[in-house]
Amino acid sequence: MSEGNLSRFSLFAPADFRYYVKELEPFLSEESYVKYKCEVEVALAKVLAKRGIISEDSAKEIALASKRVTAEEVYNEEQRTQHDIIALINMIRTKISDEAKSAVHRTATSYDIVDTANSKRYRDAFLKIIIPDLVSLEKVLIDIARREKETVQIGRTHLQHAEPITFGFAISWYVSRFGKSLMKIYRSINEMEGKFSGAVGAYNASFLFVDDPEDFEKEVLSELGLKPAEISTQIIQPENLTDLMHYVVSTSTIMSNLADDLRNLQRPEIGEVGQPRGEDISRSSTMPHKANPVGLENVESLWKVVMPFMITMYLDQISNHQRDLTNSASQRNIPQVLDLFDYSVRRMTRILRNLRPHTHNMLRNFEMNKDKIVAEPLQLLLSSYGHPNAHEYVSKLVDKSYETGRSLTEIVQSDPALSLYLKKFTSRQSAILVNPNTYLGIASRKTEEITNVWEQKLKEARLIP
Amino acid sequence: MSEGNLSRFSLFAPADFRYYVKELEPFLSEESYVKYKCEVEVALAKVLAKRGIISEDSAKEIALASKRVTAEEVYNEEQRTQHDIIALINMIRTKISDEAKSAVHRTATSYDIVDTANSKRYRDAFLKIIIPDLVSLEKVLIDIARREKETVQIGRTHLQHAEPITFGFAISWYVSRFGKSLMKIYRSINEMEGKFSGAVGAYNASFLFVDDPEDFEKEVLSELGLKPAEISTQIIQPENLTDLMHYVVSTSTIMSNLADDLRNLQRPEIGEVGQPRGEDISRSSTMPHKANPVGLENVESLWKVVMPFMITMYLDQISNHQRDLTNSASQRNIPQVLDLFDYSVRRMTRILRNLRPHTHNMLRNFEMNKDKIVAEPLQLLLSSYGHPNAHEYVSKLVDKSYETGRSLTEIVQSDPALSLYLKKFTSRQSAILVNPNTYLGIASRKTEEITNVWEQKLKEARLIP
Amino acid sequence: MSEGNLSRFSLFAPADFRYYVKELEPFLSEESYVKYKCEVEVALAKVLAKRGIISEDSAKEIALASKRVTAEEVYNEEQRTQHDIIALINMIRTKISDEAKSAVHRTATSYDIVDTANSKRYRDAFLKIIIPDLVSLEKVLIDIARREKETVQIGRTHLQHAEPITFGFAISWYVSRFGKSLMKIYRSINEMEGKFSGAVGAYNASFLFVDDPEDFEKEVLSELGLKPAEISTQIIQPENLTDLMHYVVSTSTIMSNLADDLRNLQRPEIGEVGQPRGEDISRSSTMPHKANPVGLENVESLWKVVMPFMITMYLDQISNHQRDLTNSASQRNIPQVLDLFDYSVRRMTRILRNLRPHTHNMLRNFEMNKDKIVAEPLQLLLSSYGHPNAHEYVSKLVDKSYETGRSLTEIVQSDPALSLYLKKFTSRQSAILVNPNTYLGIASRKTEEITNVWEQKLKEARLIP
Amino acid sequence: MSEGNLSRFSLFAPADFRYYVKELEPFLSEESYVKYKCEVEVALAKVLAKRGIISEDSAKEIALASKRVTAEEVYNEEQRTQHDIIALINMIRTKISDEAKSAVHRTATSYDIVDTANSKRYRDAFLKIIIPDLVSLEKVLIDIARREKETVQIGRTHLQHAEPITFGFAISWYVSRFGKSLMKIYRSINEMEGKFSGAVGAYNASFLFVDDPEDFEKEVLSELGLKPAEISTQIIQPENLTDLMHYVVSTSTIMSNLADDLRNLQRPEIGEVGQPRGEDISRSSTMPHKANPVGLENVESLWKVVMPFMITMYLDQISNHQRDLTNSASQRNIPQVLDLFDYSVRRMTRILRNLRPHTHNMLRNFEMNKDKIVAEPLQLLLSSYGHPNAHEYVSKLVDKSYETGRSLTEIVQSDPALSLYLKKFTSRQSAILVNPNTYLGIASRKTEEITNVWEQKLKEARLIP
Repeated sequence: MSEGNLSRFSLFAPADFRYYVKELEPFLSEESYVKYKCEVEVALAKVLAKRGIISEDSAKEIALASKRVTAEEVYNEEQRTQHDIIALINMIRTKISDEAKSAVHRTATSYDIVDTANSKRYRDAFLKIIIPDLVSLEKVLIDIARREKETVQIGRTHLQHAEPITFGFAISWYVSRFGKSLMKIYRSINEMEGKFSGAVGAYNASFLFVDDPEDFEKEVLSELGLKPAEISTQIIQPENLTDLMHYVVSTSTIMSNLADDLRNLQRPEIGEVGQPRGEDISRSSTMPHKANPVGLENVESLWKVVMPFMITMYLDQISNHQRDLTNSASQRNIPQVLDLFDYSVRRMTRILRNLRPHTHNMLRNFEMNKDKIVAEPLQLLLSSYGHPNAHEYVSKLVDKSYETGRSLTEIVQSDPALSLYLKKFTSRQSAILVNPNTYLGIASRKTEEITNVWEQKLKEARLIP
Repeated sequence: MSEGNLSRFSLFAPADFRYYVKELEPFLSEESYVKYKCEVEVALAKVLAKRGIISEDSAKEIALASKRVTAEEVYNEEQRTQHDIIALINMIRTKISDEAKSAVHRTATSYDIVDTANSKRYRDAFLKIIIPDLVSLEKVLIDIARREKETVQIGRTHLQHAEPITFGFAISWYVSRFGKSLMKIYRSINEMEGKFSGAVGAYNASFLFVDDPEDFEKEVLSELGLKPAEISTQIIQPENLTDLMHYVVSTSTIMSNLADDLRNLQRPEIGEVGQPRGEDISRSSTMPHKANPVGLENVESLWKVVMPFMITMYLDQISNHQRDLTNSASQRNIPQVLDLFDYSVRRMTRILRNLRPHTHNMLRNFEMNKDKIVAEPLQLLLSSYGHPNAHEYVSKLVDKSYETGRSLTEIVQSDPALSLYLKKFTSRQSAILVNPNTYLGIASRKTEEITNVWEQKLKEARLIP
Repeated sequence: MSEGNLSRFSLFAPADFRYYVKELEPFLSEESYVKYKCEVEVALAKVLAKRGIISEDSAKEIALASKRVTAEEVYNEEQRTQHDIIALINMIRTKISDEAKSAVHRTATSYDIVDTANSKRYRDAFLKIIIPDLVSLEKVLIDIARREKETVQIGRTHLQHAEPITFGFAISWYVSRFGKSLMKIYRSINEMEGKFSGAVGAYNASFLFVDDPEDFEKEVLSELGLKPAEISTQIIQPENLTDLMHYVVSTSTIMSNLADDLRNLQRPEIGEVGQPRGEDISRSSTMPHKANPVGLENVESLWKVVMPFMITMYLDQISNHQRDLTNSASQRNIPQVLDLFDYSVRRMTRILRNLRPHTHNMLRNFEMNKDKIVAEPLQLLLSSYGHPNAHEYVSKLVDKSYETGRSLTEIVQSDPALSLYLKKFTSRQSAILVNPNTYLGIASRKTEEITNVWEQKLKEARLIP
Repeated sequence: MSEGNLSRFSLFAPADFRYYVKELEPFLSEESYVKYKCEVEVALAKVLAKRGIISEDSAKEIALASKRVTAEEVYNEEQRTQHDIIALINMIRTKISDEAKSAVHRTATSYDIVDTANSKRYRDAFLKIIIPDLVSLEKVLIDIARREKETVQIGRTHLQHAEPITFGFAISWYVSRFGKSLMKIYRSINEMEGKFSGAVGAYNASFLFVDDPEDFEKEVLSELGLKPAEISTQIIQPENLTDLMHYVVSTSTIMSNLADDLRNLQRPEIGEVGQPRGEDISRSSTMPHKANPVGLENVESLWKVVMPFMITMYLDQISNHQRDLTNSASQRNIPQVLDLFDYSVRRMTRILRNLRPHTHNMLRNFEMNKDKIVAEPLQLLLSSYGHPNAHEYVSKLVDKSYETGRSLTEIVQSDPALSLYLKKFTSRQSAILVNPNTYLGIASRKTEEITNVWEQKLKEARLIP
C-alpha cells in the first residue's frame, strides 16, 4: 500500500470518491476502525483494573496511549508482524511503561477486539447517520402522501390502466413498506453484540484470572454499550449481521422499486411527475433537449451493487469449526456497501423533496380509459342485482366498445338487456358510471390513516420529536 | 401439460421425486393450492352473507361446491379462459344455482385470493410440518451437546489446533444459532398477512357494498386465521415473505456449516465422529472400502440450491406501480424451495441421531499438539506476573520446540529466565502447564447453560411439551 | 418417494406441470437419465469386448438388458443398496448370464457413467430441441426487423425521447445480441466432454487391463459422440458446464430485456406495439377491460428463476481434492432450469410472431417532441460552421422553447445570431430542421445489413437450410 | 467529494488500501479513466481531421490539450454542469482556440467516449498486468506438477481415502483448469469492442458529416486498437463484458477451490503441505504456537466478494430501449473487482512458490488405509477372472477386516474361495495387492503430458517466450 501523493482520483472504488459520504468517515473508514479497536482495548483494561487484575495506572496509561495510535503506524507495524491486532497492541505498547505493556490485551484474542469493534462502529454509524437519513426519507414520503391524498391518478397493474387511486395513496404504499423496513433496521441495530470469550469461545484465557468470565465479559461490553453474544466461538454469531444486511438490502430494493416507478411516470408520454434540472436531472452531451432522470437511475444502479452482496453475507455465515478466516477480507467490504446504501438514501430524499406531481397529466391519462374503467364496478353491481353472468357479459360490451369506438357507458345505457338492473342502482352507484373518478374506494382515507400511523410510530420510537 | 401415464420418472425437478416430502403435499402441491384458493372464496362468501350482501344459501352453496373443485378441472378451464382465477371461479359456478353464481368472488380481485391463499398455506406448512421438523433437529442438538459436554476436543481455528473445548460445547454453538433461527422463522410465520383490498388496493370494489371495507377485510381474513396487511396494492407487501425466506436461507446456511464441520471431522486422518453405514453413508460403486458421508454432502448440496433463491426473492420485491405480474412464475417456485429445505432438515436430524463421537480419536488429536497449546496460558500468566514481553518470548520458545523437537513444557521449565515467574504461579495455574486438557475455560458449564436456556425457550413457545 | 395415484397436481415444482416442455422429456426426465446411463454402460461393454477384455456375448447381453432397465426398478434397488449406480448395475445384472454379470461396469467408477451420461443428454437436449427453438426465435426477430426496417420510431434513452430510429433497427439490436448468444451456446455444446478415467482420474482401474487407457477412454466416448476431458479426477472439469449455463443465463437475460421493452411499449400512453388477446394477453378476474401482457411478464419472471442459478453453478465448481459430492443434489436441478429456459424461448417466439406494431402511435409519439429532436443536429451543424459554443447556446433556445411554448425551429429561424450559420447549411441539412424524421442516420441500411449477416451465419452453421 | 488531507485510511473500500495493486493504477483508477476518455476524443479528432471535417490544427490542439486535462478539474466542472462528459469536453475546450473548441466531440455522444474508453482501459489492464499475472500463476502450477509428478499421495473423494495418485497429478488438474480459464480470458480480451454510432446507435449525427459512418467508426476505433461493435445503441452490447467477467469469476472460483484444498492439506492431522511463516502464514495474537494459513484464507475470502458481482453484471445486461443509465454506477465498480481478482492471483502465486510438500506425511497418510485400497483392483480383477459377484464379496471382506482388525490382504490371501482366482493373477497384478502404491494408473505420465501441453499452449499464444 504505497502512498506518495494520494488523490481521490488514484482510487478504484467509487464508494471512495464519487459516492463518498463524508459523515460516515468517523465510523466506516479504516482510520476509524483502528480507533474503535483501541476503544475496545481501553474498555478491557478499565475492567481488568476494576477487578484488580492490572493496576489502575496501567489502565490509565493504556487509555491515554490509545488515543494517540494512528492507522498509519499500525499498518507499518503490520508489515513487520504480519498480524493486524498484534500490530495494534504493539503500537499501544510503544507508548507506555513496562508494567502497563504486559497489561495490554490481557485475556483477549484478536477477534474479541475485532468483532466487538465492528459491532460498535456499525451500530454508531446507523444510530448517528444512516437511521436519521432513513427517517428523513420516510418523512418526505409522509409529506408527499399527505399532500397528494386527494390527487386522482389511474392505478396501474401489468403497466395497464386498472382502477383509480390517488397519487398520495400510491406513495403511502411506500410510507408503510419503507417505514417497516426502517424499523427492522432499527431493531436489528439494538441487537448488535460483542464478545470477550477468547480464542475458541470457552473463556479459556479469562478463566485463568476470573471465576465469572461471563460477568467479566458483560462488564467490558457494557463499557461500550453492547451486550454479550449468547455463545460465541472465536467469533460472534454471524446471523445478527446477516439479518441487518438483509434488512439493508431489502430497504434498498424498496427504494429501487420506487425509483423505477417514478422514472416511468416521467416518460414523456406519461409525464405524471417531474423534477427540476440539476443534480438529479441532466442533459445529454449531444442532445440539449433531453431531461434525463439520472438521480433515480443512480439509486437503481447502486441497488444492483448492494443487493448481490447478500450472497457474500450468506457465504460468510459458514466458518469451519471454531472459525476460519475466510470471512475476513469479504467482511472488510461491508463499510463500502453501507456507504453506497446511505448515499442512495440521501439522493432519494433530495429527489423526493424536489418532485413535482403533474396533476394535469395525471388527469389526462386517467381520462384516456376512464370510460373502460367502469367495467369493474358495472359487472360487480350487475352481479349484485342478480345478473347471472355479469363478468362475461360486460367483457363483450367492452369488446364492442373497442370495435365500434362508441363509449362503454353509452353502450351500457342503451342496452335493453341491462335496463332492468340499472334501474336498481342507487344514485351513488349510478354516479360512478358517469364519473369514474369517484370510484376511488377509500384511497384518501387510507392515505391519511397510514401517514398518521407512521408519524406516530416514529414518534414512539423517538426517531422524530 | 399432457398427462397420460404420469410417473415420477417423467419429471425434471428432483424436489418432485428424489427429495419429495410427502407430508408437505397438503400445503405445497398444486392441488392443495387450488384447495386453499377455494377456502378463501368460501371465507369471502361467508362474510358477504353475514353482512347480507349475498344470501346465506348462496354462501352455503359456494362452500359445498368448493370442496368438489379439482385442480384438473381448473386447469382445463384455464386453457379456455387463459386466466387461473377466472377458471377457478367458473369451476365453482358450474356446481351451483344461478343466484349463487353471481355471488362468487364478489368484491374480490384475483390477488385477494392468490396472496391470501399463499399466506395461509405457507403458514400451515410451517406450523404443521416444517417448524416441528426444525424443533426435532434442535432437540437432537441439545441432546448431543448435553451428553458430550465433558468430552474434551481440540478447538480449531484456521483449521489449526487452537485451545481445548468440549465436543458438547462445539455443538452448543449450533444449539444457539439454530435455535435463534428457528424462532425467527416461527415469529415470521405469525406475521403472515392476507388482503381483501381489491384490484389496486384502495378497496374500490368492496366500498361499493360496504362502508367499512377495512373491517370487512379483517372479518374475511379472521375466518382464515390471518390478519390484514397494513396497506396493500393489488398485492400484499412482499417484505414479509422475503424476510421469511431470508430466515429459511440463513437456517439452511447454518445447517450447511454444521454439515461441513462434521464431514471434515470424519476425514480418516481426524476421525472424531462417525456414522453407521446406511442411507447417509454409502460405499463406492468401485471401491468397496469407502465410507462416503453422502447424507452430509446432500445437506450442503441442497443449500446450494436454496440459498441463491434469495436473489429471486429480492427481484420479486420490485413490482411496477400497483403491481406487475413479473413475480408470478418465480413465486410459484417457492414450494419446491421449502420442500428442499425441509428435506434437508429431516436428513440432518437423522444424521445427528446416528452420529457417534469417537472420543479416542478426539483425545489422540488433542494430544498431537497439547504441548504447544500451553503457549497461550503461559504467555498470559507470564504477562500477569510482570514479564514485559511474554508473547514474543514464548513465540521464540515455541520455535525452539519445533526446531529441537524438545517439548515446550520442558524448555519452559528449564529456562532460567522464566523460573522467577513460574514460581509465582498458583497450583491450578501450574497444573495447566502439565495437563493442558484442564485449560477448558467454562466449556462444560456454558454447554449446560445453553442447552437449558434453549430447552426452556422451546417450552415457553409451546414448541415442546 | 411414494407413488400411488400420481398426478401433475401433487407436484411442487412448476417446471413439472405448468411449464413442462414435453419434448424435453426424452433427455431431461429422470427416466431418460437412467436410459442415458445405461447407454454409457453399453458403450463401455462394447469397447471392452472389442479389446477382448470381456466376451462379445457379454457385451451383447449387456446391450439387450440395458434396454429393459427402468427407472422404477433402479430406484427400488437403490433403497436397498443406498447407491444409485450400484443399483443401476444390479438391474442390468439381474437380466444377464453369470459370465456377463462380472463384465458390467468393468474399469468404471460411478462418475465415469454419471458425468458422461449427463454430457450426452444435455448435448442431445440442446441439439435436438433447445437450439432449434433458439433458431426459431432468431428467425422471427430477423423477420420483424426486416419488415419494419423503415418504420420510424423515436429512439429512447433514459426512457426519454432521444433521436429517431426505426422499429426494425430496434429489433436488429436483438437479432445481433440473441444471435451471438445462440452461437455461444451452440459452440459450447460441441465442447461437451465425457470421461473414463476412474475413481481419482489417474486411470488406476483401466490401466489394470489396458496399456493405453487414454485411447481406451477415447474409444468408449467416441461410441457416444463425445470427446474425452483433457484431464479429469473422479469428475470432469466443471467449467464447460458452467460456461454453458452462463450462456443460457445470459441469453435468458437478453430475452428478459426485450420482454421488458415490449411490455413498456404496450403501456396505454405509448401503445407502439400490441398483441392479440389469448394465451399471452389476458383479462383480469374483476376488470373486463384489461389487456394484460401476461406472456411477456412470464418470460421476465422465469428469468428471475433461471438467472440466480448461476450462483449454484459457481458453488459447484468447487469440489474438494479429487471430488466431494456436494455438487450432486444441486446439479440434479439443471434439467428443470433448462426446461424453464426453453419454455420461455418458445413463449417469446409465439409472442413475437403475434406482435403487431402500431405505426400510428409510433408516429404520434415521435411527433410529441420532434420539434426538440432537432437540437442535436442543430448544435452539431452550428459547431461545424464555426459556432464557438453551440451546445450551450442551443440548450438555452431549448429552454426558451419550453418556457414560451414556441417551437424550437421557429425560435431558431428567427434568431439573428444564427442566421449567418443557417445560411451555410446544405439543403439536406436544412431539410432535417423541418423534417426531423429524416434524421435517421443509417437505421434502415444497418437493419438490412444485420439481418442479412445473421441469416447467413445461421446458414453457414447449418442451423437453417 | 471533499479532499483536504486525503489518506488511504479515510477510505471505505479495502480495494483502495489493503488490497490495492499499484500496477493497475494507470488503467483502473479514476484519473486513468479521464486519461482514456481524453485519448478517445483525440482519436476522434484525428480522424475528423483526416476526413477534412475539422482542421488539422484543431486536431493537434485537441491532442495537446487532452494531455493536460486532470480528473480534478473535470470533477470540479462536473459540479457545475452535472454531466461528466460535458465537463470533460469543457476542460479540453478551455485549453484551445475558438476554432478548435467547436471541433471537440463532433458527432459523438457521451457513450461513444465512455464505452470505448472502458473497453480500451480494461483491455490494457488485462494485456499488461492481469494476464501476465495469470501466466505467472500457471507457470508455478506447471513447475510444481512436474517436480512432484512421482510423489505418491492418497487420492481423496468425499474427503475419504480413495485410490493413489501423485501430488503432481493433483496439481496438473489445476494446470489444465486454470490454463483453460486463462485462455478464455485472453480470447475474450481480444473481442473487446468500441463504438462511434451516436446517441441511439443509428449513426444519426455522424451521417450528417460522412456518407460511410460505419467506415468512419472503424477508422476512429482502429486508432485505439479496437474493433467496432456489430451493432450498438447508445451503448455497446453488454455481453462481451459479461462474458469476460464470467471468465474472471470462474477463474477466481478455481483458485478458491485450490486454496481450499491446500488449507485442508495443512490441517495438523494431515500435514501434507506446508508454508513458511511470513506474509501468508501468521501467528495468533494470543496463541504463539499457531501457524494460520491467512494467505490461502484471503484468496478464498476475496472470491466471496468477486463471485456475487456476476449478479450485478447480469442485471446490467438489461437496459431499456436504446439504453437507460441504471448500469452506470454499478459498472463503475468493475475496476475494484478486477483489482481484488488480480490481488488474489498474485497472492496465490506467491503462496504456491513457497509451498513445500511434506512427502513423509503424504506417505504416512497413504499407509493409513493402504491395506483397504486394494479393494478396488481386487474386485475388478476377481470379476475379470470370472468371479460372479466380486464387488459384494470384497465388500464383505472389507467389513471383516474392519471388525477383526486383520489386514484385508491377509484375509484375501487366506480365503479358500478366492485362491482359484488369485492364481490367475499376473505378477504385476499380484504385486498391486502387496504394494498398493504401485496402483497409480498413469498418474505420472499424465502429469507430464498435461504440463507439456500447457507449456506449449502458452508458447503458441506467445504468453511465454
